[in-house]
Amino acid sequence: MSKLWDKGLALNQQIEAFTVGNDYLLDQSLVYYDCIASKAHASVLEKAALLSPDEAQQIKQGLDDIIALQIKGEFEITSEQEDCHTAIEAYLIETLGELGKKIHTARSRNDQVLTAQRLYYRDQLKEVESLRVKLIETMAQFVERFGQISYPGYTHMQKAMPSSFAMWGWAFIESMEDNGMLLATVSKILDQSPLGTAAGYGVPLEIDREMAAQELGFARVQQNPIYAQNSRGKFDALLIHSLSAMTADFNKIASDLILFNMSEFKFVKLPDEFCTGSSIMPQKKNPDVLELMRAKHHLVKACEFEVSSLTGNLISGYNRDLQLTKEPVMKALKITQDCLEIAVLLFQNLEVNEDRCQKAMSPELYATERAYDLVRQGVPFRDAYIQIAHSLEEDS
Amino acid sequence: MSKLWDKGLALNQQIEAFTVGNDYLLDQSLVYYDCIASKAHASVLEKAALLSPDEAQQIKQGLDDIIALQIKGEFEITSEQEDCHTAIEAYLIETLGELGKKIHTARSRNDQVLTAQRLYYRDQLKEVESLRVKLIETMAQFVERFGQISYPGYTHMQKAMPSSFAMWGWAFIESMEDNGMLLATVSKILDQSPLGTAAGYGVPLEIDREMAAQELGFARVQQNPIYAQNSRGKFDALLIHSLSAMTADFNKIASDLILFNMSEFKFVKLPDEFCTGSSIMPQKKNPDVLELMRAKHHLVKACEFEVSSLTGNLISGYNRDLQLTKEPVMKALKITQDCLEIAVLLFQNLEVNEDRCQKAMSPELYATERAYDLVRQGVPFRDAYIQIAHSLEEDS
Amino acid sequence: MSKLWDKGLALNQQIEAFTVGNDYLLDQSLVYYDCIASKAHASVLEKAALLSPDEAQQIKQGLDDIIALQIKGEFEITSEQEDCHTAIEAYLIETLGELGKKIHTARSRNDQVLTAQRLYYRDQLKEVESLRVKLIETMAQFVERFGQISYPGYTHMQKAMPSSFAMWGWAFIESMEDNGMLLATVSKILDQSPLGTAAGYGVPLEIDREMAAQELGFARVQQNPIYAQNSRGKFDALLIHSLSAMTADFNKIASDLILFNMSEFKFVKLPDEFCTGSSIMPQKKNPDVLELMRAKHHLVKACEFEVSSLTGNLISGYNRDLQLTKEPVMKALKITQDCLEIAVLLFQNLEVNEDRCQKAMSPELYATERAYDLVRQGVPFRDAYIQIAHSLEEDS
Amino acid sequence: MSKLWDKGLALNQQIEAFTVGNDYLLDQSLVYYDCIASKAHASVLEKAALLSPDEAQQIKQGLDDIIALQIKGEFEITSEQEDCHTAIEAYLIETLGELGKKIHTARSRNDQVLTAQRLYYRDQLKEVESLRVKLIETMAQFVERFGQISYPGYTHMQKAMPSSFAMWGWAFIESMEDNGMLLATVSKILDQSPLGTAAGYGVPLEIDREMAAQELGFARVQQNPIYAQNSRGKFDALLIHSLSAMTADFNKIASDLILFNMSEFKFVKLPDEFCTGSSIMPQKKNPDVLELMRAKHHLVKACEFEVSSLTGNLISGYNRDLQLTKEPVMKALKITQDCLEIAVLLFQNLEVNEDRCQKAMSPELYATERAYDLVRQGVPFRDAYIQIAHSLEEDS
Repeated sequence: MSKLWDKGLALNQQIEAFTVGNDYLLDQSLVYYDCIASKAHASVLEKAALLSPDEAQQIKQGLDDIIALQIKGEFEITSEQEDCHTAIEAYLIETLGELGKKIHTARSRNDQVLTAQRLYYRDQLKEVESLRVKLIETMAQFVERFGQISYPGYTHMQKAMPSSFAMWGWAFIESMEDNGMLLATVSKILDQSPLGTAAGYGVPLEIDREMAAQELGFARVQQNPIYAQNSRGKFDALLIHSLSAMTADFNKIASDLILFNMSEFKFVKLPDEFCTGSSIMPQKKNPDVLELMRAKHHLVKACEFEVSSLTGNLISGYNRDLQLTKEPVMKALKITQDCLEIAVLLFQNLEVNEDRCQKAMSPELYATERAYDLVRQGVPFRDAYIQIAHSLEEDS
Repeated sequence: MSKLWDKGLALNQQIEAFTVGNDYLLDQSLVYYDCIASKAHASVLEKAALLSPDEAQQIKQGLDDIIALQIKGEFEITSEQEDCHTAIEAYLIETLGELGKKIHTARSRNDQVLTAQRLYYRDQLKEVESLRVKLIETMAQFVERFGQISYPGYTHMQKAMPSSFAMWGWAFIESMEDNGMLLATVSKILDQSPLGTAAGYGVPLEIDREMAAQELGFARVQQNPIYAQNSRGKFDALLIHSLSAMTADFNKIASDLILFNMSEFKFVKLPDEFCTGSSIMPQKKNPDVLELMRAKHHLVKACEFEVSSLTGNLISGYNRDLQLTKEPVMKALKITQDCLEIAVLLFQNLEVNEDRCQKAMSPELYATERAYDLVRQGVPFRDAYIQIAHSLEEDS
Repeated sequence: MSKLWDKGLALNQQIEAFTVGNDYLLDQSLVYYDCIASKAHASVLEKAALLSPDEAQQIKQGLDDIIALQIKGEFEITSEQEDCHTAIEAYLIETLGELGKKIHTARSRNDQVLTAQRLYYRDQLKEVESLRVKLIETMAQFVERFGQISYPGYTHMQKAMPSSFAMWGWAFIESMEDNGMLLATVSKILDQSPLGTAAGYGVPLEIDREMAAQELGFARVQQNPIYAQNSRGKFDALLIHSLSAMTADFNKIASDLILFNMSEFKFVKLPDEFCTGSSIMPQKKNPDVLELMRAKHHLVKACEFEVSSLTGNLISGYNRDLQLTKEPVMKALKITQDCLEIAVLLFQNLEVNEDRCQKAMSPELYATERAYDLVRQGVPFRDAYIQIAHSLEEDS
Repeated sequence: MSKLWDKGLALNQQIEAFTVGNDYLLDQSLVYYDCIASKAHASVLEKAALLSPDEAQQIKQGLDDIIALQIKGEFEITSEQEDCHTAIEAYLIETLGELGKKIHTARSRNDQVLTAQRLYYRDQLKEVESLRVKLIETMAQFVERFGQISYPGYTHMQKAMPSSFAMWGWAFIESMEDNGMLLATVSKILDQSPLGTAAGYGVPLEIDREMAAQELGFARVQQNPIYAQNSRGKFDALLIHSLSAMTADFNKIASDLILFNMSEFKFVKLPDEFCTGSSIMPQKKNPDVLELMRAKHHLVKACEFEVSSLTGNLISGYNRDLQLTKEPVMKALKITQDCLEIAVLLFQNLEVNEDRCQKAMSPELYATERAYDLVRQGVPFRDAYIQIAHSLEEDS
């Protein structure tokens, strides 16, 4: 079967490879979502009398068959088909004949792709959210186990004042709570149904967009067809940014722990499974997992950068450039979920070395307290500060 | 008077220039906010009996004097003082003597800077919000005036289907409404008081942080001192991202209008004030203002990039690197507000050229409608589509 | 067989998936290069009497066998092996027994990976260079065919002065020549052998690094072992930047042609193979290939951003984060080569529509010439300019 | 005097502020270069008989007067004039009357700006180059003083193998040498004269562009007028990238030294002038200068990002967006030069703490050497490695 837009022109194979990219691979994740969106669309067409009840029923059955095949790993999208949308329509035409050709009424590939992506993002964000909650729980348990242990707090990477693993752990719990607030709003902003906006200028048919939105569980209809297309890169960048707020935390957690795990500190004991050896140095237990956790934040930021950069200086409406935002969003979601899972494992297994922490609590950490002792005796803070500073210089 | 941290070490001038940067210029915007934060801090110190009621009163009066001076443009921050915080404390010591040395009790420059910035951001975001509302209003009026005019909708920069200036204008109104949802959440996330977290590990004194937060109008206290510091780059990046959602819209509006203003289109008539001439070509009326509106979005994204990049791979707690996030946030706020204002002027003065729009409504824009006419007669969409496609090829 | 660094610790599967990534897939491209580098290393070990002549011979034979297998698509790298380096050593141990365990003498996986990558980059850059030359040739032929046709030159996206397709084509030929100058220097900077720098601090054995460099065709030895590791992200970012100079040109070529191909212009006729249809609009021939060519530049920039961002704020020496620079470099090379090939096809098949160009040469394009006519009669340029400007305003 | 392009249209003040930006401030750096370029242009006009010898002489004298004024700080560019080019032409008209109006013959502001910028960049890059050479010299002297001292080499931020300050210092010397190779090529690519390309489509007059190029010391003429404009963002991004190769080194030097300066290491002693205190903690000597050196790399990368992002998806020829590339290039040059100067000061004053380095040379650093001792006795490397690994586990 030919592609949706094929009108009989021969396409050079090289050009085909260039344009298809790896959509046909990525799109396995979208088959389910395109099918349920197409089912809702069939209902809409039925209501608009563009499909008879029986036709709608047959199409929905065909779509359910595809879902069943896909679950069994038996629904193939060929490189020639380019994406899941063509493959699904092809299947319907193959199995239902003429009737299959009716499903693409009153929509375009543009809104079809958008709808499937939004449904997919919604489920992925739910998974992110549930991992986020799990992680907070795990971090709270870590704090319960080790929170009372003091260690030196650093500023400018210099010993500053006493800290504790409760203070350290809660720093990230609070951050993850703020991340949740952002994630909720981003999810809400994305929770609008583009189905029925067609190519970006609506369709010259009366269809019930509200019905489709409800059937698919969207909170609202995205009314404006131009905005539906314009929001593509915009929502993608926003979604990735909200993920990067979490990976930024992982970047910092990893940076802290890689330092605290150095032999010069050893405030923490990493789980053995988080370390690997060296191919040349027999003594090494390298914190590879943490280094990768630190590094993967930058991959997520690169995804955000890619999406923003792609869509700059383009006019309104669909441009093919937008196709390329799909992969970075999927990649950012995958990385963030992976990092969340690894972070849960980390906090379940991370141990604090109380002895080494204790030994690191050297006197200079208490200089501020000593200054405040003077303050309590009535010395203005600035004078107390200078007095302690001088006494420290004499000591050293 | 010496800098807050000066302990008598000589500092090479070259190094001083390197470290100070232009904070002493930027900080004029923060003087007011540091003063009101310091007033709230004086109340806290009074409650903690670290200042007598009379002392607190004198300090507050001194701070009010500074505010008054600043309004008159007479409060100077010298390059040697480095920032407004040193200048303010210096003024208090100069005018109040020993008493002035007490205001820095129970805080550090780290939380002091953060508090002033957050208060400043809050006011700036309110200004953004009010401009956003004004812009939506202005766009709605534009749509009222010109919305009924049709023009060709483009996909792939090719004539696609009929659009209208109502559809075009509402695309950006809807987008600006979503931007408002994001802005509200970002404002809420930032609305927490860091005052009292000191250098990032709290202070060894009992102080009423809740009281300071209330006096300053913060919705809540940012409890964790480490998070207060860690949130610096994080909140900054988030804030800029929420601004960039708006400048992305301006980028698109400008891209559309620059195209629509070309002599080949002339769908719109830009206000004369939005155009400039060429130094060599007498005929030119260039859409410079729109080109700059398009371009400035990239400056905002660069600010976001800068903040994210700065803070990657750093351990928890304050690092001096964070000082450099101040300028990009201020810059992004300024650009966004400027663009919002220019966008208001634009929509107040933009006109649509109905005649040229009408002429551009060529037959191919109605191909989809013709296909749907066939669909209404019972032809499956795919077949209708192919039939129209062939008839168009014969025409051309 | 266990991984190079495996010392018997059990590794949670989830963590393994997280750390391995898709190196085992990417590394198929590196098998050949690791084998020839290992052959050179065997020669070095033989010279250092760490292998007997016969042992060196056997190892080289084993490596040749691997190359032969790989060419036939029969050399497998399993996910458990993680990368090609482990797989190759495993094969040698499996087939040569104890002897296989000797090849990793006097090197580390760090310099081994770097060497294979550099050899791979060198071949890839040669391919880029040969495509660049081919493209210049093709563009010159395009100019020969269509160069004499005039079209309106634009500034500020407004008709400015007469241009021609010779001027347009040569703009990109000159740019591609400058790109060649950059590419040559980047290739030269990268052309240094890291083999023998081991983990980043050398090896406590006398080995002839010069010999390895010569056998592998490197121009010089990268002397400093720390620099060998530090140069990893640095060279990668530089390489990608030099590629992005080319994709930036493609971005501009595509942007120009997408505009010139609009029905409002039609200065050019794109080859049919470069266009696709719409799933809803029967009339459309969309310039998808050019849109993707435009878009892919941003993917390359994102790769550069990713590499730079990854390596910021890290201390000297190998950090596992650096592993993640491999994929973006490979991706950027692939995209650039693809775009070069597509650009060749484009210029081979692109046609100029002389008739439409002619019709677009409206009088305002000659305003500057008219001003210069006055200049030749002695009128100062500024006065001539104002005179023509006024006459144009009266006309319009 | 009115702006170059002013044709009598009133410009809303708000819009003027938006479009002018701070060019009138930045342009003080360009006055000299615009004057010498204009002098060369006067020679060209004289040769083309568009100026008489006497006229050319008067104009050149006027330009010399401006240079003299500027040196004394007395050449003002007002915000209304927008940039140095208008201010210079205004001065000539004011002092020379009608004659002043002739200098803008056969050029446009587009090539005028480009020429002044390239001349400015050339001088700035020479300054960068001379600082680079000075730094290498200083680093070599540092190595002479402290190179023989061993310290632990780290991989994965774990003690790996013995290193030395010679190895460390030379890592950056080699890198700075490679940076020089890149810088030289970038300088060469930029060394072409755009003067005479006018607005981007040449001028309809015979002028001797070669003569202008020679008089200004350019290596060659940039032939193609479209390329002259297109190269603007391209060369800017390339220039900044070549600077960022240096600031990336400073980022790493600073990251290393901040770690090595921690009390847990104290391998180095920073000069007192490089450290500042804390406003709350009397004991602190923070490595602020190094933190800012680390941070400023990201500002340079943000400048590169800004320039690349600005120019994406724009068509050929001048677009006003390009005006905004001036500031990031100037900023990146300033930061890089500042960092080079600070780096020279750093290596002049940095000391190594031999005693602390010695104490840090713990036994595990020699594990690889112990394995190689076994290798020399004939044990295959892999077996030697495992043997030492086991013995270390028993020890610990």
